[in-house]
Amino acid sequence: MFISFEGIDGSGKSTQARRLAEHLRALGREVVLTREPGGSPGAEEIRALVLRGDPDRWSAETEILLFTAARRDHLERTILPALAAGKVVICDRFADSTRMYQGLSRGDLRGIVDQLHALMIGREPDLTILIDMDPALGLARAKGRGGVEERFEDFGAGLQEQMRAGFLALAGEFPDRFRVIDGGRAVDEVAQDVAELAARERL
Amino acid sequence: MFISFEGIDGSGKSTQARRLAEHLRALGREVVLTREPGGSPGAEEIRALVLRGDPDRWSAETEILLFTAARRDHLERTILPALAAGKVVICDRFADSTRMYQGLSRGDLRGIVDQLHALMIGREPDLTILIDMDPALGLARAKGRGGVEERFEDFGAGLQEQMRAGFLALAGEFPDRFRVIDGGRAVDEVAQDVAELAARERL
Ligand SMILES: Nc1ncnc2c1ncn2[C@@H]1O[C@H](COP(=O)(O)OP(=O)(O)OP(=O)(O)O)[C@@H](O)[C@H]1O
Ligand SMILES: Nc1ncnc2c1ncn2[C@@H]1O[C@H](COP(=O)(O)OP(=O)(O)OP(=O)(O)O)[C@@H](O)[C@H]1O
Ligand SMILES: [Mg+2]
Ligand SMILES: [Mg+2]
Repeated sequence: MFISFEGIDGSGKSTQARRLAEHLRALGREVVLTREPGGSPGAEEIRALVLRGDPDRWSAETEILLFTAARRDHLERTILPALAAGKVVICDRFADSTRMYQGLSRGDLRGIVDQLHALMIGREPDLTILIDMDPALGLARAKGRGGVEERFEDFGAGLQEQMRAGFLALAGEFPDRFRVIDGGRAVDEVAQDVAELAARERL
Repeated sequence: MFISFEGIDGSGKSTQARRLAEHLRALGREVVLTREPGGSPGAEEIRALVLRGDPDRWSAETEILLFTAARRDHLERTILPALAAGKVVICDRFADSTRMYQGLSRGDLRGIVDQLHALMIGREPDLTILIDMDPALGLARAKGRGGVEERFEDFGAGLQEQMRAGFLALAGEFPDRFRVIDGGRAVDEVAQDVAELAARERL
């Protein structure tokens, strides 16, 4: 079983991915918790290359190719071997984040993202948990953390709203694997919902 | 005008690319001489990442994605701006080398190479000069140079023969842009042929 968490910045993906991993381990399942971009040594190196230096050093198209190379490595070296060994794989962001960020924020590249995915990745999660939330709440949380805040300010509230709408539209596009959870509640409440979802999906 | 040189290892691509650049400059043309893999700062960094570490660290598919990312960067940052400024671009290896090396020596990935090219590169040279030669002659030359020899020995004479046949087949596939030159002669004789070819193509 391959599960991804998606949602806007600061919505609680990493927190809930970790909580679900702990919950499933407590039930005796073997779990690999991983994340993108990164998730394997080669993918981490590609990620470092993408992030290094000035933001304009790569075009959107080159960046999508580099992220696809990283995802291919992550899939081959981390995700598929774990699934083959019968483990549960929980991934903090996967291809849907590329569909949203590169497909929306950097020109209308969704078509290219999808064609590259079909050609070189070809695998979707069995279950994608979208943590949906008002971006204003994410910003308030981020103020308590630091780091994320700048990104919110860079992107602006309008873009965060677009991202939220975009993720919900993606959930509508792939209804078989997407489940939407209300992330605007206490961590434990959200975690409880995610655990019930996992039980319903027979994890 | 965008010209590439192709051919098996040690066939004289770099030597002839340099000679053609000198020849055209002497005729008053502005020439950008570049090469793959590499050819722009970003592409050189991707190249260094691909070559670093143990040879099995990337799958053939990930490697093709990384080379395509490097080619996209090279095209955007070096080749297209030079062409737009009216310069002649001479490139020592281009996409045909990926078609041959990744498409032939690392599994039958030619289909993937071609689809990635169509999606993310989409540009072929206007003229591709294939320097054709008996691989045994290349090996003899390499003995006088060092470095290349190991590669010949790694790949083996059989594979070099396959590469030669593969490049000739590629020339047959793209007859409009490929011209085949006999590289088994003295440097000056080959350079003379290349210069005549360039004159015929109105460079
Ligand atoms: N339900 C919640 N209520 C309040 N605070 C929360 C909740 N969930 C997460 N947080 C806090 O909000 C911040 C963002 O959470 P987290 O890092 O899990 O989000 P994320 O979606 O992974 O963010 P990013 O997109 O930056 O990776 C953290 O400081 C976290 O402790
Ligand atoms: N026509 C020629 N006759 C004899 N020696 C040659 C000739 N052309 C090139 N050489 C020598 O052969 C060696 C290989 O040439 P060159 O580096 O130009 O080939 P190449 O195709 O670029 O090789 P590689 O595939 O390794 O990049 C060099 O030492 C070069 O000086
Ligand atoms: Mg996170
Ligand atoms: Mg050379």
